[in-house]
Amino acid sequence: MSSDTAAALRSNISFVTLGVRDLEASRAFYAEMGLSEHPSSNEHVAFFDMGGQLLALFPRERLADDAGLEPGDDPGDGRLTFALAQNVRERADLDAILERATRAGGRVLRAPSEPPWGGIRAYFADPDGFAWEVSWNPRTTIDEAGRIQLNSSR
Amino acid sequence: MSSDTAAALRSNISFVTLGVRDLEASRAFYAEMGLSEHPSSNEHVAFFDMGGQLLALFPRERLADDAGLEPGDDPGDGRLTFALAQNVRERADLDAILERATRAGGRVLRAPSEPPWGGIRAYFADPDGFAWEVSWNPRTTIDEAGRIQLNSSR
Repeated sequence: MSSDTAAALRSNISFVTLGVRDLEASRAFYAEMGLSEHPSSNEHVAFFDMGGQLLALFPRERLADDAGLEPGDDPGDGRLTFALAQNVRERADLDAILERATRAGGRVLRAPSEPPWGGIRAYFADPDGFAWEVSWNPRTTIDEAGRIQLNSSR
Repeated sequence: MSSDTAAALRSNISFVTLGVRDLEASRAFYAEMGLSEHPSSNEHVAFFDMGGQLLALFPRERLADDAGLEPGDDPGDGRLTFALAQNVRERADLDAILERATRAGGRVLRAPSEPPWGGIRAYFADPDGFAWEVSWNPRTTIDEAGRIQLNSSR
């Protein structure tokens, strides 16, 4: 049934993003838990390097907005309180993965477009409505094992 | 403010668990996306090795049950549709992390206890109610970089 291996999801989740209500409270919590913020963190988002993966804290309404949804317009009961992301090496991989997700029974939440921080991103939902961002981002480096690194230059 | 470094969260998320409505539909979706199931998968749960991290698909009501919640008794709007987990090397680390989470403003959802598959696990919620499992599990190996491996023997 499936075919194009180039379009497959890689065996790495690049970002786990939690849509939080109070960014300062959440970043204080995770700092207290012993995690160190990545230098790319700023007043809008907190990043923690989790060994080739980023844990991101992002205000909930901004996460929904980034996925192209109106506030309250959740793809399913609360699932856009968080999102998984996979960064791709080539721009073309992004379209291929979206196409594959649609064929597999998922649906596109947001077509490819440019976020303010550069690159191109899109979102699809799995059968439960769990949101996946697919992102091509010149600010990230993907190593041979598929782990990503976030460049700290803004 | 914080102190005991031994009790800190490690910079790795061991499991990302999606609480799904239809396990067979979801496992078919992720297989179509190009991911291969780990041999430890069975009729109750699907595991995908994501490079030292496991993506797990688990029926939603069983996830809530595992976290010690009644159905519908969500720690916050829909957040128990998924959980993050960190596996620890020593049994004592589990208690230390729970204590730290409580001090940091989180709360314990489920006190340490033995799941049917062995080991010991507990759950805490971060300030938004996002659920973290902390698990000491003899079935998993944790490498020097903190990445986990799931042993395929049942």
